[in-house]
Amino acid sequence: MGNCSQGCKDYFSRQKNTNIRLTLPVVCFVWQIAMIILFGVFIRYDEESDAHWVETKAHDNITSDIENDFYFRYPSFQDVHVMIFVGFGFLMTFLKRYSFGAVGFNFLIASFGLQWALLMQGWFHSLDPQTGKIFIGIESLINADFCVAGCLIAYGAVLGKVSPVQLLVMTLFGHSLGYYGLSISRVLYRPNLHQSKRMQGSVYHSDTFAMIGTLFLWMFWPSFNSAITDHGDGQHRAVINTYLCLASTVLTTVAISSLSQKTGKLDMVHIQNSTLAGGVALGTAAEFMISPYGALIVGFFCGIISTMGYIFISPFLEKTLKIQDTCGIHNLHAMPGVIGGIVGAITAAAASESVYGKQGLINTFDFTGDFKDRTVLTQGGYQAAGMCVSIVFGVVGGAIVGSILKLPIWGDPADENCFDDEVYWELPDEEEEHQESIPPILEYNNHMIHKQQDLSESNFSVEHCES
Amino acid sequence: MGNCSQGCKDYFSRQKNTNIRLTLPVVCFVWQIAMIILFGVFIRYDEESDAHWVETKAHDNITSDIENDFYFRYPSFQDVHVMIFVGFGFLMTFLKRYSFGAVGFNFLIASFGLQWALLMQGWFHSLDPQTGKIFIGIESLINADFCVAGCLIAYGAVLGKVSPVQLLVMTLFGHSLGYYGLSISRVLYRPNLHQSKRMQGSVYHSDTFAMIGTLFLWMFWPSFNSAITDHGDGQHRAVINTYLCLASTVLTTVAISSLSQKTGKLDMVHIQNSTLAGGVALGTAAEFMISPYGALIVGFFCGIISTMGYIFISPFLEKTLKIQDTCGIHNLHAMPGVIGGIVGAITAAAASESVYGKQGLINTFDFTGDFKDRTVLTQGGYQAAGMCVSIVFGVVGGAIVGSILKLPIWGDPADENCFDDEVYWELPDEEEEHQESIPPILEYNNHMIHKQQDLSESNFSVEHCES
Amino acid sequence: MGNCSQGCKDYFSRQKNTNIRLTLPVVCFVWQIAMIILFGVFIRYDEESDAHWVETKAHDNITSDIENDFYFRYPSFQDVHVMIFVGFGFLMTFLKRYSFGAVGFNFLIASFGLQWALLMQGWFHSLDPQTGKIFIGIESLINADFCVAGCLIAYGAVLGKVSPVQLLVMTLFGHSLGYYGLSISRVLYRPNLHQSKRMQGSVYHSDTFAMIGTLFLWMFWPSFNSAITDHGDGQHRAVINTYLCLASTVLTTVAISSLSQKTGKLDMVHIQNSTLAGGVALGTAAEFMISPYGALIVGFFCGIISTMGYIFISPFLEKTLKIQDTCGIHNLHAMPGVIGGIVGAITAAAASESVYGKQGLINTFDFTGDFKDRTVLTQGGYQAAGMCVSIVFGVVGGAIVGSILKLPIWGDPADENCFDDEVYWELPDEEEEHQESIPPILEYNNHMIHKQQDLSESNFSVEHCES
Repeated sequence: MGNCSQGCKDYFSRQKNTNIRLTLPVVCFVWQIAMIILFGVFIRYDEESDAHWVETKAHDNITSDIENDFYFRYPSFQDVHVMIFVGFGFLMTFLKRYSFGAVGFNFLIASFGLQWALLMQGWFHSLDPQTGKIFIGIESLINADFCVAGCLIAYGAVLGKVSPVQLLVMTLFGHSLGYYGLSISRVLYRPNLHQSKRMQGSVYHSDTFAMIGTLFLWMFWPSFNSAITDHGDGQHRAVINTYLCLASTVLTTVAISSLSQKTGKLDMVHIQNSTLAGGVALGTAAEFMISPYGALIVGFFCGIISTMGYIFISPFLEKTLKIQDTCGIHNLHAMPGVIGGIVGAITAAAASESVYGKQGLINTFDFTGDFKDRTVLTQGGYQAAGMCVSIVFGVVGGAIVGSILKLPIWGDPADENCFDDEVYWELPDEEEEHQESIPPILEYNNHMIHKQQDLSESNFSVEHCES
Repeated sequence: MGNCSQGCKDYFSRQKNTNIRLTLPVVCFVWQIAMIILFGVFIRYDEESDAHWVETKAHDNITSDIENDFYFRYPSFQDVHVMIFVGFGFLMTFLKRYSFGAVGFNFLIASFGLQWALLMQGWFHSLDPQTGKIFIGIESLINADFCVAGCLIAYGAVLGKVSPVQLLVMTLFGHSLGYYGLSISRVLYRPNLHQSKRMQGSVYHSDTFAMIGTLFLWMFWPSFNSAITDHGDGQHRAVINTYLCLASTVLTTVAISSLSQKTGKLDMVHIQNSTLAGGVALGTAAEFMISPYGALIVGFFCGIISTMGYIFISPFLEKTLKIQDTCGIHNLHAMPGVIGGIVGAITAAAASESVYGKQGLINTFDFTGDFKDRTVLTQGGYQAAGMCVSIVFGVVGGAIVGSILKLPIWGDPADENCFDDEVYWELPDEEEEHQESIPPILEYNNHMIHKQQDLSESNFSVEHCES
Repeated sequence: MGNCSQGCKDYFSRQKNTNIRLTLPVVCFVWQIAMIILFGVFIRYDEESDAHWVETKAHDNITSDIENDFYFRYPSFQDVHVMIFVGFGFLMTFLKRYSFGAVGFNFLIASFGLQWALLMQGWFHSLDPQTGKIFIGIESLINADFCVAGCLIAYGAVLGKVSPVQLLVMTLFGHSLGYYGLSISRVLYRPNLHQSKRMQGSVYHSDTFAMIGTLFLWMFWPSFNSAITDHGDGQHRAVINTYLCLASTVLTTVAISSLSQKTGKLDMVHIQNSTLAGGVALGTAAEFMISPYGALIVGFFCGIISTMGYIFISPFLEKTLKIQDTCGIHNLHAMPGVIGGIVGAITAAAASESVYGKQGLINTFDFTGDFKDRTVLTQGGYQAAGMCVSIVFGVVGGAIVGSILKLPIWGDPADENCFDDEVYWELPDEEEEHQESIPPILEYNNHMIHKQQDLSESNFSVEHCES
């Protein structure tokens, strides 16, 4: 390659880089086998999903099967599941030629992530001290899907710029706040990304596909925010709050989007993303007694802030902080997430017995035996502190993972091949031949005009014509 | 503009008309702020979504959280929610270049409409006389979504011919029967709509997108018809009836559609729409003891009538009554709605204690204390009368709202710009560039052939070539 | 037609063959009317969906409406319903020009099939001996949807090669194992199918549409496998097992797909289909105590076997056994189905009281009074024998039905018109005109370049240009 021109060098570097025929299968196999072994050692059915439940039930004086936690949470679980696989997957199909990568890698990450999350959450939160086992039930599956959402948000920041192997590594160290993805994207900054500019936009149908993702996320966010809240009024209230908050977000998103263009035209990027900000922002406080109008107010401001983020902050982040955030997760997840943390902390700090009732306070804030002297104010403080710790972890963790991903072994695309499914997918022939019988000469011409692949031939004919 | 030719006038008038940069944000902001204030004054959580429920529950001798109304209705609610946002939204994406408007404005209308519906329904049906408040729970959310469906049906009649501002005004006076939309469409009659003829058809992919809408509506219609019926056998029966009725509709729709073409080919318009007519027609009677075969019979005739409506009545309505009904809501909602009213009235009038049992009669027809002397026959009469009142309200209300929408301040498109997303949306560049390295001369040529925007250049080159 | 050239003969034969204007409406009407009559004679609401339930409930000491079977199963039912109509329908839209047929005929078959299945299942499994009636409730609807799935799998084998009338006949004799479809496809072998080669691939957007089907099938398969299992821990466990099994399948599918290509690129066919194999394989054993890691292991091997099936076995089947299996149902349904049968038989045979508990054993394997002496080992034997009988029935049944479908009366397409919606659907004009004002000369040129229909004109101009 010593005598090679720049174009030739690029060609070889790309060829070398993006071959993942070894790394991807190895990572998939090794990790899946590791999962099987670790599940064999650690994971068991919990009481309510074990065939012995009939005895537990009798012991707990449960009279009907319908009181199995499964029936409280399964509809919400399936909604969350749709959000993870169809919602996040299709939301990212907006790029003109990255739909396979968007939906397909989303599918891969989430499938690995949910297994890994069951282990991680078990080890850190629910390892049974006596048996050393992790007992899983429907609530564990929901929590696993929640963890996966964090990884998919991070994917949104680096969409089109990383290989599936890198995505699996990112998922291994996944973190639930958007700052993790932004931090990785910062470390992986590509100064020559403009070379893929032609691929970075959407086309009409890809934007329509993306709306499938948007709508399933939007519709099922009430299930997301209520899936693991308290049985009864807790789940009921979380749904009402999220439903109202999201409705309000849509109106202010449309308003700001229309204001941002000379003739008031709407921008699909805003409609696809900012309309969801209200759901993110209620993540913490959905179950609280924030009142229906309180939910509307949160949504009102989230629509404004998120849309303005797309208009003003995203270009600033790219130019000044060198964060290339493909899906704008800063505007959809990071900022609204922080707002949500603040709303949650304030509402928790303001909680009073007159609003919640004594038992309501206990149910909502988990004031069980151990936490007896943790008052609502300290609860608010804890939540605020938790959010700060979470941001720091996200940024630092992202920086470390980003550095690992800079190693030249992961098969990531060259700067001029980003946002292109061609790199990791066998693409179908694009010619839609529905004519029944085309005479040879026309067939030939048609072929050239539409595909322009045999460049010399084609070039010749054009010059011939123009001379 | 004194010296302006007709074409030039059109150009300026269009430019002037469709600028909604002022009106749309103002309407969105003002209405959303009004919602926040009115919700602050009127809307509160109901007993089952309030943190005090634990006390209410004890008082009512409820032993398990699972008896919260939330668990009876939440799965149906989410299905209805999907129908509203994905079902109606995607059903209207069939036009070749109005997918953004179909899904996006549907999203906007529904988001405002559900808030407004919570207030309207509260004021008229469930205002608590003591506190002057409206108490909301999961059933209120379902009812709000139902109201929104009415507005979206009306949108179907004027799809592609109105501005989002006009749609928000329509929603303010929304009415749940299809005649409201038809009446508005009549008042807004455009004699020169043929100038948009080129945009009024579908393309292959837009028809496939529309089938997403059709199928989610079709699959979840059993949830729609059972969402607020009585707990237990009421919901159970409403699901069975709707499920069977819709299956029957599909077969007769296919039969008539095939009959209507010379070689028996099927028409996507019929499959997308008429297959749903059975669900509409069972709207009133789904919970009644109409028997499984009764449900099949209703579906049988609805498929025939609705498909024939698309073939014969829609052209008649447009030519004779000057009703330009973009989605054919007359055939999908108005006619089947009337059939449904009649079926409901007859079945109610025919209800007997031997079929329902004494308690069943009370449960199904809400014969509570106050209505003690309302017999099944009067019940049937009431339902028939209610339907007539509803039609009259729809037609008159539509005429009034239509007149308001004729004012030249709403930014609606010119006759030659209907059914075109270009008017209200920033559209993506349509060039799908997936070639890796195109020589400049070809790139240039390719650009011209596919986009033809720089007209003089392009024109020149063609003439150059042809000379 | 005596003097007719081959091309002319083909033209006439195709014209004659594919006209279904008589057969399709007749079959639809006759069968739907038969359904109405048979439902009138046989089908009634069951106890829990009848208005008299209030009395039954009191008799059975049921205290709350929530114990109606409806609330145990309705969320799962709706998920299954989505799998049938959106899942199977969109999974088959991958062909470039058969989306209407995929979604539309899927819709037709399923709508007829579910009615027919209610009758068939009733006659063979649940006919009430005293009244001679079939009593239906939510579980019947789920079982009907299950039966329909079998017919839709068979459709996958013959996709694009049969007429809707043939599909309705296939559904009449439908059988739930993939071998039925394969057997029909063998009998209908088309030696000249290569004449439709140009239509047999996918295009970019059609593959994206197919992913909608894949994902909805994948996400809701836990509901499919748990929909009719035992209340309580049974449903709970079936969901956990299927969820884990499917996640594992995705990773091994990706691994093998990547291994199969020179540069490790992924193949959409594998991602769309083989990722689902784990769900099929757990069809029998999902409810059993196979342990979370057991579920992962099943998924692990299914992903490998199914993907290798697409790479190695499908070409073999086509060349050697002359089975043209459009969707590869052998790899997605037949093989994993057999694996599932074996897994089920082994797990059943290995079931012990220490793992299930006494009552758990009774609940899971339905060891009720009559079956008291059927031990777990015999249960395993029964399941293995059942599977063998099922395969034989599928193959023989398919051969018979295939022979019937060879009669020249069903309007199936000619070999050169397979996989083409043109044959049975009114297709929209493909021109997407979103330019606002194109000068006539350019408009004309544009028209020619894009559509090339007026062949002589177009041909002339090209020659003119090249001379």
